[in-house]
Amino acid sequence: MIRIFKTNTFYIVLVLLLTQACSPKSNERETEGGLSEDALPSWNNTEIKNRIISYVEGVTNPSLPEYIKPEDRIACFDNDGTLWSEKPIYFQFYFVFDQIKKKSKEHPEWKNQQPYKAILEGDHEALMNTPLPKLLEAIQIALAGDTPEAYKAEVKAWIDTAKHPTKKVRFDQLVYQPMLELLDYLRANDFKTYIVSGGGLDFMRGSLIDVYNIPSEQILGSTLKTEFIETDSGYVIIRQPELDFIDDKDGKPININRVIGKKPVICVGNSDGDLAMLQWTSDQEHKNLEMIIHHTDSVREWAYDRDSKIGHLDKALDQAKADDWVIVSMKEDWKVIYPQGNSK
Amino acid sequence: MIRIFKTNTFYIVLVLLLTQACSPKSNERETEGGLSEDALPSWNNTEIKNRIISYVEGVTNPSLPEYIKPEDRIACFDNDGTLWSEKPIYFQFYFVFDQIKKKSKEHPEWKNQQPYKAILEGDHEALMNTPLPKLLEAIQIALAGDTPEAYKAEVKAWIDTAKHPTKKVRFDQLVYQPMLELLDYLRANDFKTYIVSGGGLDFMRGSLIDVYNIPSEQILGSTLKTEFIETDSGYVIIRQPELDFIDDKDGKPININRVIGKKPVICVGNSDGDLAMLQWTSDQEHKNLEMIIHHTDSVREWAYDRDSKIGHLDKALDQAKADDWVIVSMKEDWKVIYPQGNSK
Repeated sequence: MIRIFKTNTFYIVLVLLLTQACSPKSNERETEGGLSEDALPSWNNTEIKNRIISYVEGVTNPSLPEYIKPEDRIACFDNDGTLWSEKPIYFQFYFVFDQIKKKSKEHPEWKNQQPYKAILEGDHEALMNTPLPKLLEAIQIALAGDTPEAYKAEVKAWIDTAKHPTKKVRFDQLVYQPMLELLDYLRANDFKTYIVSGGGLDFMRGSLIDVYNIPSEQILGSTLKTEFIETDSGYVIIRQPELDFIDDKDGKPININRVIGKKPVICVGNSDGDLAMLQWTSDQEHKNLEMIIHHTDSVREWAYDRDSKIGHLDKALDQAKADDWVIVSMKEDWKVIYPQGNSK
Repeated sequence: MIRIFKTNTFYIVLVLLLTQACSPKSNERETEGGLSEDALPSWNNTEIKNRIISYVEGVTNPSLPEYIKPEDRIACFDNDGTLWSEKPIYFQFYFVFDQIKKKSKEHPEWKNQQPYKAILEGDHEALMNTPLPKLLEAIQIALAGDTPEAYKAEVKAWIDTAKHPTKKVRFDQLVYQPMLELLDYLRANDFKTYIVSGGGLDFMRGSLIDVYNIPSEQILGSTLKTEFIETDSGYVIIRQPELDFIDDKDGKPININRVIGKKPVICVGNSDGDLAMLQWTSDQEHKNLEMIIHHTDSVREWAYDRDSKIGHLDKALDQAKADDWVIVSMKEDWKVIYPQGNSK
């Protein structure tokens, strides 16, 4: 519990409750007609794209000294702001607020009780002024009590219908097409891809498995405590109203070490919350690739970094520049942001 | 921390600090000459072997109603007493005691201080009379302070040389040949096999990856807390002298849910510490297989169950009988216990 109150920003900490594919073998794939096919078609042909391809081609070439065996090809991706958008607030919050509204029928007292009152009235100003422990407690009550299976089913029903307040499309349509291509390109080259996010583990497992074509055991996130109990109808796990682990900042390398037990060779993030896992990745014997998704496109997405509470990118941007990490400018390096015709 | 003191036996709790293959497609494989090859050659042709094969053939047959998709074929195995022996005490203890002996040079005071005195003198009687918190604290001090990488390297060096006190072979030669074949048979049928043990996660990752041919991300175990820190030489994770999680009893289904996010369809254990994950496995929509390895062979291995502190099997044996789980008698069902010519 103590770790929560060490983190700096209101938003990053809160996220503890939160969070498509094709398939060529290498970037320039020979097609039947002998023409080459681009595995990263939504990336502009910039230096950034070249660095990614050059890295992957190098470490997968057994005749080169930088060759990495397939079992060590671990690639870890942050989720919010790295694989899908995170503005105006983390998408999981919309789910949480919807849940609190749903449960408010059983809690008439919430109408006059903060922070429920602010959530029910959509009063973001009041929410931001709510003391953190109070807000966390409220959210825990709203999100605990179910089995993980039941909770994930609720998340799934929500993600299949809920729409973003300004973009007016489903939240899962706000994934980044270039990142879907990158995930797929890496998998085609025998990288095992993981999501490592401050978002809630069950939220992500309920909403993102099909979106990113990723199995639940390759998703790491923040967790509530759980209990195993015997009921009249059987044996179940129940989500408890108490935080267990915050998968943010130092928590990211700690969780990667615990769950995977290997250091990633590729690490991608977009905020200071990803700095620790980027630093950890950068310090190893294998050739490694650290990447920052920089939100530079105010027209097609949002533009923000050092001054933003959500996706706060300051120290990590400084270190990325100093250490020559790959900094992806969404405006310059991406042909498209979201999938075209992303409907289901 | 509280969970530790809830567990019943001295040994099971302590284990928090603890802790090969061939490949045919199905049991009766057609060989080139048209003869069939047995995937479980070290299993006697008993009802038990038939039940295992019948289960696997059923759930992997797409034309049968019990068919399970490959991504849901999760098989979880306990380690101590299920995949390798655990007598006279859990093998990790020998490593722990060796470590304490090694570090005792820097701690001359240990000669007169319990429980170090008992450990250094090999006084098992005194050890069993040591209050649990005191013993745990002592072991934590001996095993914390390293990076996971350094600790795993120490474990590896130990497992490659240390010998069992009475069997006079290396500890990793005391794995069960029939279980190596079962692991392999399941993998050949697209099951993802996991170890879920009360043993120490880093201990198992240091010693068992090659023995069971299992990647580190498919090993779940008990953990110490860790910290991520920046040192003069880089960014490292350090094992702290504080317990984080005990992967035993209720902790097993809880950890499976957290790390894998799917309920296993096959679960194998040998003691009451495995009961919760066996119960959880038994309660689901998929056809499932619960298995108990029953230590019945006093000549080739050890014979024990209800009265043993190590591998205490009492409630789980009752439920296995009541619910018709598969109970493997090592004496009746296994042709051999340990691998023949298991040297490296």
